[in-house]
Amino acid sequence: MNTIDTIETAVIEADKTVPIIRITRDFTATAEQLFRAHTDPTLFVQWVGPNGLATRIEYWDARTGGSWRYVAARDGNEFGFHGCFHEVRTDRIVQTFTFEGDPDGVALETLWFEDLGDGRTRLHAQSLVDSFESRDAWLRSGMETGIDEGYTKLDALLRAGSV
Amino acid sequence: MNTIDTIETAVIEADKTVPIIRITRDFTATAEQLFRAHTDPTLFVQWVGPNGLATRIEYWDARTGGSWRYVAARDGNEFGFHGCFHEVRTDRIVQTFTFEGDPDGVALETLWFEDLGDGRTRLHAQSLVDSFESRDAWLRSGMETGIDEGYTKLDALLRAGSV
Repeated sequence: MNTIDTIETAVIEADKTVPIIRITRDFTATAEQLFRAHTDPTLFVQWVGPNGLATRIEYWDARTGGSWRYVAARDGNEFGFHGCFHEVRTDRIVQTFTFEGDPDGVALETLWFEDLGDGRTRLHAQSLVDSFESRDAWLRSGMETGIDEGYTKLDALLRAGSV
Repeated sequence: MNTIDTIETAVIEADKTVPIIRITRDFTATAEQLFRAHTDPTLFVQWVGPNGLATRIEYWDARTGGSWRYVAARDGNEFGFHGCFHEVRTDRIVQTFTFEGDPDGVALETLWFEDLGDGRTRLHAQSLVDSFESRDAWLRSGMETGIDEGYTKLDALLRAGSV
């Protein structure tokens, strides 16, 4: 049973005035669990990205000033991603993000967790890039599939008590 | 003797469509020297910021995935700054930047070095934030004094053969 306000499928919004993509998604989880799901690499690889891609961590230091890299593989094709953690707090994560297929492209990502009560938490994610062209290319890339399938895997991990 | 095209005083521009500040400044230096001036902490503290502030490094690891923090002090007042290095290449530096007086504010900064020939190099710096309000607050903060005085100190270091 869901209340009217539940966001079960990720809402992906393009800001009208700045080159930002905003994602909002509710989970049956505590803020602490969502923080763990985004910072513990053994959890993160189990849910991030679309179905059918195997993600492996190359390095991962989820602390303020740390950095990360992972590779997602399918059918012999590999896609690398990397960045640094500007700030890792239990209520807020700020990090950079580069898809290595576009090596000079960089996004500044901010995630925060809003306790909705009743054991639910709303994830807010914001991704800022330096032009509307880059932002709109991301929106046209099919990113919503990876986001929806990834969060559905995270739902399953939470239901299984794995987080 | 300067050619017509020399930018001796930093040009600071507010982008019209995205919340970016762009800075352009020419130096009598090679790109390699400008790279060193921005990545070697013993050089960096000698020129960054306005006159009369003493800068000390708290930590500094100018490599892709590294991080940094410095404190600028004057008359017993201290101002902290920190961030992480998303990418450090000889021709391009991408890093995050927080002034700790506004701890949740974050800028994504990109610097690159354009060889103008004749031993001169143009520094390009771009600072991206997530709202025009934040960007315009920076522009109203008197930042140009710190930028101009800082780059004048860097000119002197270059003339002295210290870089």
